[in-house]
Amino acid sequence: MGNAQLVIDCAERLSGQADILLFPELTLTGYPPEDLLLRTECDRRVDQALDLLKSQVTDTTLVLGYPGVRDGHRYNLAGVIRGGEIVAEYRKQRLPNYSVFDEKRYFEAGADTVLFDQGGVRFALTICEDIWFESSVGDAAAEGAHVVLNLNASPFHANKTAEREQQVGRLAAKYSLPIVYANLVGGQDELVFDGASFAVNSQGVLACRAAQFESAEDIVVYSQGDLLPSRVVAPLQEDEEIYQALVCAVRDYVTKSGFSGAVLGLSGGIDSALTLAVAADALGGDNVDVVMMPSRYTADMSNEDAVKQAENLGVKCRAIPIEPAFNAFLGMLDEEFAGLPTDVTEENIQARCRGIILMAISNKSGRMLLTTGNKSEMSVGYATLYGDMAGGFAPLKDVPKQLVYRLSQWRNRDGEVIPQRVIDRPPSAELRPDQKDSDSLPDYDILDGILGCYVEQDMSVAEIVAQGYPESEVIRVTKMVDRNEYKRRQAPPGVKITRRAYGRDRRYPIVNKF
Amino acid sequence: MGNAQLVIDCAERLSGQADILLFPELTLTGYPPEDLLLRTECDRRVDQALDLLKSQVTDTTLVLGYPGVRDGHRYNLAGVIRGGEIVAEYRKQRLPNYSVFDEKRYFEAGADTVLFDQGGVRFALTICEDIWFESSVGDAAAEGAHVVLNLNASPFHANKTAEREQQVGRLAAKYSLPIVYANLVGGQDELVFDGASFAVNSQGVLACRAAQFESAEDIVVYSQGDLLPSRVVAPLQEDEEIYQALVCAVRDYVTKSGFSGAVLGLSGGIDSALTLAVAADALGGDNVDVVMMPSRYTADMSNEDAVKQAENLGVKCRAIPIEPAFNAFLGMLDEEFAGLPTDVTEENIQARCRGIILMAISNKSGRMLLTTGNKSEMSVGYATLYGDMAGGFAPLKDVPKQLVYRLSQWRNRDGEVIPQRVIDRPPSAELRPDQKDSDSLPDYDILDGILGCYVEQDMSVAEIVAQGYPESEVIRVTKMVDRNEYKRRQAPPGVKITRRAYGRDRRYPIVNKF
Repeated sequence: MGNAQLVIDCAERLSGQADILLFPELTLTGYPPEDLLLRTECDRRVDQALDLLKSQVTDTTLVLGYPGVRDGHRYNLAGVIRGGEIVAEYRKQRLPNYSVFDEKRYFEAGADTVLFDQGGVRFALTICEDIWFESSVGDAAAEGAHVVLNLNASPFHANKTAEREQQVGRLAAKYSLPIVYANLVGGQDELVFDGASFAVNSQGVLACRAAQFESAEDIVVYSQGDLLPSRVVAPLQEDEEIYQALVCAVRDYVTKSGFSGAVLGLSGGIDSALTLAVAADALGGDNVDVVMMPSRYTADMSNEDAVKQAENLGVKCRAIPIEPAFNAFLGMLDEEFAGLPTDVTEENIQARCRGIILMAISNKSGRMLLTTGNKSEMSVGYATLYGDMAGGFAPLKDVPKQLVYRLSQWRNRDGEVIPQRVIDRPPSAELRPDQKDSDSLPDYDILDGILGCYVEQDMSVAEIVAQGYPESEVIRVTKMVDRNEYKRRQAPPGVKITRRAYGRDRRYPIVNKF
Repeated sequence: MGNAQLVIDCAERLSGQADILLFPELTLTGYPPEDLLLRTECDRRVDQALDLLKSQVTDTTLVLGYPGVRDGHRYNLAGVIRGGEIVAEYRKQRLPNYSVFDEKRYFEAGADTVLFDQGGVRFALTICEDIWFESSVGDAAAEGAHVVLNLNASPFHANKTAEREQQVGRLAAKYSLPIVYANLVGGQDELVFDGASFAVNSQGVLACRAAQFESAEDIVVYSQGDLLPSRVVAPLQEDEEIYQALVCAVRDYVTKSGFSGAVLGLSGGIDSALTLAVAADALGGDNVDVVMMPSRYTADMSNEDAVKQAENLGVKCRAIPIEPAFNAFLGMLDEEFAGLPTDVTEENIQARCRGIILMAISNKSGRMLLTTGNKSEMSVGYATLYGDMAGGFAPLKDVPKQLVYRLSQWRNRDGEVIPQRVIDRPPSAELRPDQKDSDSLPDYDILDGILGCYVEQDMSVAEIVAQGYPESEVIRVTKMVDRNEYKRRQAPPGVKITRRAYGRDRRYPIVNKF
């Protein structure tokens, strides 16, 4: 019922200022409600929320989204509530069932164009995916609509705002129909919604644009056959919008999970440095604390840089060396491993000792542990399950290493938050003497290039080689990606910021060998 | 190409004995191939496999399944290969998109009935879900088919064999058409396929049934308008079929992942005892080893029972007490936790010390760590992330506690494998003095009852209370289920044996509060 109350609050704030309040897709349940939709309980709660809205909001027309069973089938609906009743109801026609979307698991597709009249102006209803098909606006035009309303839950990925505005602007101009596009804001699990609701006039020109990553209430005026110009917020540049997406996702995931803040391990490396900056910006420096957990392999400058960044951001920082526990495990396993060479096992024990320390602090303090691994590492399995992969949320899970550098530099734009030495030094896991990432992985420009082709563009080995990457590296990297599906399956959720994230967006079997 | 070779091998073995060889749905790729289907590479490999079959198998007609793009859309196909070419190809019409199935993500639905002639007999093709709709057999009958072939990848759950045979028998009798039903065998990730292929004659009477959980080659003879009676293997009873499903799933997951065996922690409790029995039956006692990891809270009889069971099954067993590491962590966190009361944090540290030991042995030995938690615990979060939840596969993930007892008793039917005392003693996590599961959880008959209603049948709190369960317990248990979605998201895969398993079968958001 939380979202119904938000609608009521909004209606009270804007009382007398607007004739119609337009909310996003599935306003009442959030998006995506997933299998909650399969519970009859869900329908009952939606009905209760609708009854509440009908009784509480009587002086404004509400247009909002919710699921509902009609004629024996479940639909993704947009309803118009006016004067205590639902005066029109539209059933979403185009059900996305690709990428992160599973709407055909839950919904039947509607078939009818639905218009409603408000003060002599005819409004047509559409929902999200509908607007990516010309027929939605074409049908509305054919039935004599004056304005098209579009309720959205359009998940963020980099540069998506421009794509949306181009598509909607093109259709508006083609059919000479203004379109108002309302999008969800906030994070749910692996998705973040960036808002940035907008409206285009009948020439397809932007009449209004709300800010990204903020709840906004913008008023658009329809007068003499078209929308009047209104507030147009400048769009964020790419690095900034990605950074803000991470901040929004972390804030919502941590607080909606009921945690009072976050904790993370700060190694002196770039990934934990960027994660800390995001966490502090999302939750406030007071609500984040960091732990340095040096081992025999940790360089002094790692500790120095970690302390410096914690000071820069005003977060609590302490050091808990892992040697006592690491030594205890080596002793306990001494007999078991007698005569066997040292290998990745001992590296993993170190990473897992750190995981235990961090989880203990998380358990005791009620702060959520954030993992610090990036997309490049998650792709090739350069991470330890139950070690540095332990945590409730993985802010950088969909951020390739090279983008980690770009975002770090962007965060330093107004002064050094992340020490420059952290950005400049060669990356190392520091799990054995003089270890460098480049000992086991290709350079990150090559690695990220290959991964982009393989994971985000589904290219074959031959196609990637044709892009100019060395064949041996392409084979090695793609095999690492395939082989490490089992690790990703146990990874914490992280936020999608690229066109293809790990998680619901990329569903691969583990043991299938085809 | 492994599955294409299995088809060729089978054709060679049965050369001259059969006119048609019928294989399961998506024979060439396995089921489900998931997002592998979205790679153009996948189509190329399928075409290569088909070319291989066309050139290698020339004296028998093959009927097998594979994905393919036709007229610009991807279909789930059944092809008939004869004399070096594909002489008929059927497109699956009914695409399941519920439960564990996502076929609308990948496939378009076909529309045409497809028959082929072999020696004057007309065979109709259908694929899996098609046979659950009358029209599939009705259309075949209308077009003059003599026999309906049905290619399946029907995942196991308890008692499903009878459901399949009833449905298929009913349709056969209704349309007086024999039906041959070929099902997949083996495990892939969270699914296990039980085989049990069968054929019914034109009265709907069983003419043939293959064994469950075994690759089988049965020959069915069509003569004078009907199928002749052939081998009918008796079906397994419920406890046995579930046990065999677990064995098959563990064997396939471990070996297909390239591991040489399995390792697990043996606590003296019922869950690890049953997991060990399943693992030893799946992989052989020689390929399983167990570790006892007593703490200050472990009862002597736990160790004694663990040793006894290991001896019964001929598996290697050793003890590695966790005290040195547990003490090391308490010391390292002494300052951090000064003045704070002991709580679940310290229990989790113990469980995580065990996780590190087991993962270290797994890493060093190349044996996969199996977790031992059951469905009741996974439901309410009575398990430690990165502790007892650490591992590659969770054999009992979909087995409720009461079924754990039943399966243990069944496994002891021919002599004591699991010590009787393990079955009889009250369950305890042994993470603090005199701890019992019943301190924090309802009795398992009540817990499993509530969970069955909530998780498997989607009942609301009110509906469950109406079943006779105490309201306070129903509220407590359902909240625990909701709150622990985040733990399940990071759990290893386990095999589905009920109508609703955790994993792809039940998709819930984590932070959505609706």
